This record gives sequence, C-alpha cells and structure tokens, in this order.
Amino acid sequence: MSSKILKGKKGIILGVLNENSIAWEVAKKCKQEGAKIIISNAPLAVRFGEVKSLAKEIKVPVIGADVTKIEDLELLVDKAVKYFKGPFDFVLHSVAMSNNIRKKHDYTELNYEYMLKTLDVSAVSFHKLLQVCFQKNAIADWGSVVALTYIASKRIFPQYSEMADAKSLLEGISRSFGLHYAAKNKVRINTISQSPVKTTAGGAIAGFDDFWNYSDQMSPLGNASSKDLASFCVTMFSDYTRYITMQNIYHDGGFSSTGLTDKVISTFNE
Amino acid sequence: MSSKILKGKKGIILGVLNENSIAWEVAKKCKQEGAKIIISNAPLAVRFGEVKSLAKEIKVPVIGADVTKIEDLELLVDKAVKYFKGPFDFVLHSVAMSNNIRKKHDYTELNYEYMLKTLDVSAVSFHKLLQVCFQKNAIADWGSVVALTYIASKRIFPQYSEMADAKSLLEGISRSFGLHYAAKNKVRINTISQSPVKTTAGGAIAGFDDFWNYSDQMSPLGNASSKDLASFCVTMFSDYTRYITMQNIYHDGGFSSTGLTDKVISTFNE
Amino acid sequence: MSSKILKGKKGIILGVLNENSIAWEVAKKCKQEGAKIIISNAPLAVRFGEVKSLAKEIKVPVIGADVTKIEDLELLVDKAVKYFKGPFDFVLHSVAMSNNIRKKHDYTELNYEYMLKTLDVSAVSFHKLLQVCFQKNAIADWGSVVALTYIASKRIFPQYSEMADAKSLLEGISRSFGLHYAAKNKVRINTISQSPVKTTAGGAIAGFDDFWNYSDQMSPLGNASSKDLASFCVTMFSDYTRYITMQNIYHDGGFSSTGLTDKVISTFNE
Amino acid sequence: MSSKILKGKKGIILGVLNENSIAWEVAKKCKQEGAKIIISNAPLAVRFGEVKSLAKEIKVPVIGADVTKIEDLELLVDKAVKYFKGPFDFVLHSVAMSNNIRKKHDYTELNYEYMLKTLDVSAVSFHKLLQVCFQKNAIADWGSVVALTYIASKRIFPQYSEMADAKSLLEGISRSFGLHYAAKNKVRINTISQSPVKTTAGGAIAGFDDFWNYSDQMSPLGNASSKDLASFCVTMFSDYTRYITMQNIYHDGGFSSTGLTDKVISTFNE
Repeated sequence: MSSKILKGKKGIILGVLNENSIAWEVAKKCKQEGAKIIISNAPLAVRFGEVKSLAKEIKVPVIGADVTKIEDLELLVDKAVKYFKGPFDFVLHSVAMSNNIRKKHDYTELNYEYMLKTLDVSAVSFHKLLQVCFQKNAIADWGSVVALTYIASKRIFPQYSEMADAKSLLEGISRSFGLHYAAKNKVRINTISQSPVKTTAGGAIAGFDDFWNYSDQMSPLGNASSKDLASFCVTMFSDYTRYITMQNIYHDGGFSSTGLTDKVISTFNE
Repeated sequence: MSSKILKGKKGIILGVLNENSIAWEVAKKCKQEGAKIIISNAPLAVRFGEVKSLAKEIKVPVIGADVTKIEDLELLVDKAVKYFKGPFDFVLHSVAMSNNIRKKHDYTELNYEYMLKTLDVSAVSFHKLLQVCFQKNAIADWGSVVALTYIASKRIFPQYSEMADAKSLLEGISRSFGLHYAAKNKVRINTISQSPVKTTAGGAIAGFDDFWNYSDQMSPLGNASSKDLASFCVTMFSDYTRYITMQNIYHDGGFSSTGLTDKVISTFNE
Repeated sequence: MSSKILKGKKGIILGVLNENSIAWEVAKKCKQEGAKIIISNAPLAVRFGEVKSLAKEIKVPVIGADVTKIEDLELLVDKAVKYFKGPFDFVLHSVAMSNNIRKKHDYTELNYEYMLKTLDVSAVSFHKLLQVCFQKNAIADWGSVVALTYIASKRIFPQYSEMADAKSLLEGISRSFGLHYAAKNKVRINTISQSPVKTTAGGAIAGFDDFWNYSDQMSPLGNASSKDLASFCVTMFSDYTRYITMQNIYHDGGFSSTGLTDKVISTFNE
Repeated sequence: MSSKILKGKKGIILGVLNENSIAWEVAKKCKQEGAKIIISNAPLAVRFGEVKSLAKEIKVPVIGADVTKIEDLELLVDKAVKYFKGPFDFVLHSVAMSNNIRKKHDYTELNYEYMLKTLDVSAVSFHKLLQVCFQKNAIADWGSVVALTYIASKRIFPQYSEMADAKSLLEGISRSFGLHYAAKNKVRINTISQSPVKTTAGGAIAGFDDFWNYSDQMSPLGNASSKDLASFCVTMFSDYTRYITMQNIYHDGGFSSTGLTDKVISTFNE
C-alpha cells in the first residue's frame, strides 16, 4: 500500500540502528510514501553498525549525532537544512537507552548517574533536538514531530524499570514544546505509544518474550508491529493530521483501553 | 490534496444535514479520496432538508434512517450491503440531539424524558448501529468506525449541558464495542474529539460564538475546522491506522493539553 | 479505628440491600464516625429484604425510594430534611442494575429497553437525585456527594458488559453536576472507582471469581475490600476534603496504574 | 477541626522553607492531628532561613538534607529512625527548584545543565528518598508517601516552563516506586495535584498573580489554599486511605475537570 502521502516532504529519522529498529521501518515507509529523508544515530553506532548499509539500501544519507550533545545536534540540523535546501517537514525521535536496565539494576537499586544519563538520552534529548530546530528555524510551517513512547509511562510494568519514568518525561516535553512550537510555526508535536516490539533495546528487558505474549493476548487486535506503526507514523507526518498536537496516541491494538480479554483470563485460569 | 487513500473502500456517513454539517465535509473528502459512500440522516431531515441535493452534488445515494429504530438501521445496513455488493469498510456516526438544550432547560432543570431521548439519539444509537452491523456481518474485516465527540465529556462547559454526559456514554460504548468487534472481525472503533464547529446543532448552544472564540484562543493551533477533521477522518478509515482501536483522539489544535495560552491570559487581563 | 470525623454530619446512604452491600459497610462506618444517617433502597427491596433488620441493627431509619421516580426522590429528600431538621451533608449513591447482565444477553445482543433501563437506574438516577436536592436546597453548604463506579468505564472487561457504559455516564453526570452544585452551594461531587467486591450485584456477573482473583493479583496492594472503601468514603464526606470535586478517585490497591505484576505474569506463564 | 486522625503516626515533612511553604501548613496540621514529625530542607535553607524558628514554634526537630545527595538522605533517614525509635509512617515531598525559571530562560532557550539539575532536585530526589527508605526498611508497613505536583504535567501553562516536565517525571516515579513498595511493605505512594499557591517558589513565576486569578475563576470551588491541602494530606497519611496508591489526585476545587466557567467567559468577554 502506498498513496505517496508524503510526496514533497522531507524529514529526519533518528534511531535507526539495525533491521529490527522501529525507526528503520519508519524510514522505509517514508521513502515509499514519497518523502526525502536523512537517517541518524549515535556516531559509534554509525561507524560500527549496520546503519550505513541500511542507508545504502534505500539510498539516503546517514548523519551521526550524539543526541545529548547540542553541537552534534546543531551539525545534524545544519547538514539537513543544507541537504534539503531549506527547512524540513518532519522528525522521528526513536531513541532510548538505560544502563540501569542493561546492567540489571533493580528499580529499587538504581545507580543515579545512570538514571540521569537515561533521562538525558531518552527524554531531554528530545528537548535539545527541538530547541536546536526551533532556534534555527529548521522545521517548515505545519511540520510534524513524533517521538515514540510506551504505556509504562502511565501503568507500571516491573521490568520496564526507570524507562517508564523517562517516557513520562518524554511525553511531558512533547506537550510542553508543542505549545511553543505551535505558536511559532504551527509545528505539531506528538508521541505515539506503541505495542512492545522485539528490537535490540527491547531485547535488553528481562522476560521480554513473556511480556510480549501477555501484551499480545491482552490487545483485542493483537500487538501492533513496527510495520503497522510505520504506516500510522506517515499519516502523522502528512498534511492529513495538521490539527493534532500535544497528544499521546495509542497505537497498540486496543491494549490501553482493555481491562481483560477472554484470552488472558482463560490462560490465567488454566 | 488527495492521495486516493480510500481507493476501493466503501462506507456510510451518518449525520449529513446541510452544508454546515461536519458529516458533509467528511462525505466530500471520502469521495475525493476514492471511496464509494452512502449518506444518511433521519427520514424527516431527508424529506425536507438539503440532504438530497447535497447527495446529488457528489453523486451518492441517500438512505433515510431513524438511528433510534432497529428496523430502520437494519434496512439501512441491508440496502448498503446490497448497494456495495458486500460488506462495507467504514462508518461515520455524527449524530447528536438534545431537546433540553433546544428548549433552554438548564442542566439543573432537566426534563428526564428528553434526557433519555438525548442519550438514545446521541449515544445508544451508536450501539444499535454497531449491533446491527455485527449481527449482519456487514462490516468487512479490518473495517473502521468513527463517532464524533467533544471534550466536554471530560471537562465541563456550562452551556454544553447534558450533551457532555451523552458524549461520555458515546465514548464508553465505543470502547466497549471495540473489544467485541476486534475479536470478531478486527473491526476498529474510535471516537474523535473535535474542536467546536458552527454547525446547526452547535448553533443551538447559547453563547456559542464566545465559546468558539475562547476555544480558538486556547488552542495553540487554533480551532480545527471541519475540513481539517475530514482529512484526519479519512486516515482513520484507511489502512494506515489498522492498529488503533478503542481510542478517543483529540483533533483540537492542542486545546486538550493546554492549561493556558498567552492569548487567553492577555485577553483575560485586559 | 474511629476519630469521629463525621461528628455532627448528616447523610443519606442509597443502595443498602443486605450484609454484602458496599453501602452497608459505608452506613456502619458513617455511624461509627459520628454521623446521623438514613438508609434507602427500592421499595420492594425494603419490604422483602434484609434492609429493615440492618437498619434496626444500627438504629437508623429506612426510607424506600425508586431512584428512577422523581416523586419517590422528592419524598425521600423531604423526609430526610424533616428527620435531620434541615439540610443534610452527604449522600452515597451505590445503585446499579442491568437486566441484560441478569438475563445473560451478550454485549453484542443487547435488548435496548433493558439498556435504557440500566442507564436510568444506574446513572440517570444520580442526576435525578442531585436535581431534586438542588431544587429543594436539601444539601448543606460544603456538602459532599459520592457515587460508586468501576474502572470498566475506562478499560473494557468482557463480562462487565453494558454496566461499563452506564458507569461512563455516571462519571460524566458527576462531573457535570459538580460544576453547577459548586457554584450554588460549594457542594462537591465525586465518584470512587472501587476494586471488585462480591456483592449481590457482582455475583450476577459470569466468571466473577476468576475476575476477582485476576484483579487481586494485578493490584499491588491486593483488591480493596468494602470495609476499606467505607474508611475512604467517610474522609470524602468529611471536612478534610473540601476542595476535591468533579474527580474520579481510584480506591483499588493500585490496579489502575499497573500494567503487569510479577504475580500475574508468573501465573500466566505456568 | 481536629480528630487526631494521625494519633500514634510519625513522619517526615520535606520542603519547609518559611511561613508561606505548603509544607509548613502540612507540618502544623500533622502535629494538630496527633502525629510526631521531623521537618527538613536543604542545609543552607536550614542555616540561614526561618526553618529553625518555625520548628521551634511547633516543637519539632529540623534535619537539614540536600535531597540530591544520597549520603544526606541516608543521614536524614537514620536520624529519623533513631528519633522515632523505629520506622516512620509517612513522608511529604514538597521540593522543587528551577534555575531556568529563576533566571528567566524561556522554555525554548533552556540551559541543559540547569534542566538536569531541575529534574534532579524536583523529581529524581523523590526516587532517591524512596530508595534510601526502601533499602533501610525505614517506612512502616502500610506507610504513606505523598509528593506535591501540579496539573501543568498534563496541560501546558507557558510560564510554568520546564517545571511541568519535572512534575511529569515526578508523577511517573511515584507510580513506578508505588508498585515496588506495595509489594515489599504495603507502602502506598501518591501525588497530589494542588491549586496554585503563592509560595516563595510560586512567586518566581512571571505573571503569577494573573495566573492565580485565572485559576481561581476557572475552579468551580475556587483555588484550594495550602491549609485545605494540609487537611487532605493528613487523610492520605492516615489509615483511612490504605488502598489508594500510585494515584495522582487533584485537590484543585474542580479546575482539572472544568472546560469553562461562567466567571471566566464573562471576564473574557468584557
């Protein structure tokens, strides 16, 4: 399915790491829908990972940037504006990292240097990115920015640990900056709360498979895949959704509005 | 803008009354995006109103149906299936009526016959419509149903009166039926919470203009028009949004996530 | 535990049917905390049920009233004002009934006469009660009104069926009337969303025990009992909570903010 | 009004700065309700501010602690356990600080060292405090912890700037830690979202008075004062509310559920 709904649009996709990345699916879909894009990830990931070969696959440039560093973000944005010959129309933020989770620190035994780093990489980076774009007038009028989040920001899952808090902060930043960017350039900013996906980051979570299965059985339509997300994401970047801003939209097969399904209760009672 | 994102899709639009109807904008947009549609309203409205001439304008059939009567809904659905030569893909419910508001009964002086009628026409009708479709297998797999609502269901506006309660009920029914229809046919059901629009129904609300202006100044992007809504609506009907169900999505220029804007506070302080 | 926090307060408790009623626990707790109360239920329930003997047990009057009938509510309120020698301070609405659930009609096969009756008894009755009190100036300044609800209004549980929709409506009415009653008498109106309780009404739900167990394991503190609810309820009636209004407060052991617990996932994976 | 509902309870109140502090009102109310308490603030504030004289006024100890430093929090908790001769029952976290706001940096021109500091002081500190208590078994079974927040975490107010994001994070931490502390000691953790109050911190916000007035007119019961908050707070610390956890409760005169009031629209239209 492609209706070229992003024809003439230009954007940056942050967070493409490998073939399992959600951002990778979004990047491919954007291309398919007619957009020009740039993909990005941390310099180290770009140097040693699959990012370059993926970029080659869909013939788009890669620009490395550490999202916690203003100077990196400024370079990324400057290069993008140069490449696109003007401001761009959309941005995807799909970046999250937690050393506390990687190193199996329980939520009640957090290392606080790690926690502040988690918040910086996974949430404050979104503010930094937006502030750089804002100050450089880099996003065109009626542009659209999306960050990916997860429902753990509202309902707690033991293994998701401090990432839940980072997502609460991310959603907050999205709403806050949405107010200011609407006033300036009618730019809209939203988060999408997506079903769990078996990415490299997801794999770091203990018991991820059980959790994915539970979520799948608890979602009336089943878990949404990253391909499905990519489809939804392009509508958010398109001109079809110009008046949606400062929202968190659940793309989750109905999980968020479900208390119980027949599947879950019957598995539960076996 | 049209990318024919509804090419091959068929649907019913309920609630087309006249040129100011939100449903009318949605109907036109569906056609423009490549869908085949049927429009509908109450038999009396069809007989004496502009509905027929509007239908002629975009060359689609009109079928009258009183949404509170099962037999009318059954006829509508049967005729639609016959016309489309099979199940259809989407439905819009844009129906609301309150005699208490029309007759200026204050919220603390409601007539309860009217109130039950308001609930029946504006909310229970949505269940009736869905139940008829469900039992007749009239909606195709992965079909999409949308009902229009307003944020008064969550935050109270004095003049919106009992319609706020009807919208709470409508949103509840949307979530409830979404669970069951997902299990049966992967049909998704959502509500869109739209900015205020100067329709015939809206005009019945005392002080509507002041209220519209307030909302406009309180929305970072301004109030969304019914044309904008129509654009969003077609993405919800399309295959781009297959995993969104049981949600209430705010299409409101950011109003729902705004506590205060510079415009409002400065008007307020003048 | 009793600190007489309702000393000098007077109130009406609607929905006392038998020893398992939530309202019965609230009634006993109100007495224990120093309030004068009247208990009420439908005339038939009063004539043939245990209500009278319960009332005798705690030495309070019973007044029968069909909550769907204005004349019954007017009589109840008039008698209460007479008994209390003036306006009263608090009201509990704990009333719900669904013939569709009783008669095992699936949510996709509802009888609509029953559904409208469900809405009338379980939700519109709350508006009727409030409107009668409002017009008769029967609630004292800074009075407090509470209605009981359940999280199914937000997240769907298959067996809870149309009662979920009735609770959405009830919560909407609570917010709407809260605006108006605050302006008139500073009366506050809230709903409490309580853990599932094995009452006579709850027993009518198919598979209630499994559902109760699931909820218990999914609640970090376990399900809240009706005794616990009664404790919370009296704080809502007291002067300690004067500025809380138009809210829905979850008294549910944390269920509403939990995505998964270790208990549930381990039961699930057995 | 006092019913000694905290008789036998012991707790720590963080954030008492001066007579205008919300925490000061809570401290006084806790004493009045029969609790033993300790008050705390940053060492500098304790050395040079009014904290000591306030403590003397109600005859309670003061312990200085920088809430961003684990060693300070450990000392505070150790001293408290010693003073109380065992674990304590409740904690209030009323701590917030933003150098970006103090130094009038606009939300689109944030200094990120300041921002990370804001998050650390105003939100991560809550995690640190809880983790220290958790590891030291310092809170008694069924204890209660409350942090103060503001609705800007959900709806944006231009002047509230990055503090809105800090509050989103704070509310997230409250939910996350609530899950774990419930499992360990049945300790419950909640946030209270309070009306604006003219404290020293509030005074730092540009245009605070206009904002306070707007909020007051938009709240059906008017803004809640810190005295009112203190009353509600003690019920949250008491045994009356044992099954409420992981919630954010609005103590705001109905502001959060109000879309518009007659007062606001008439001021607006003048």
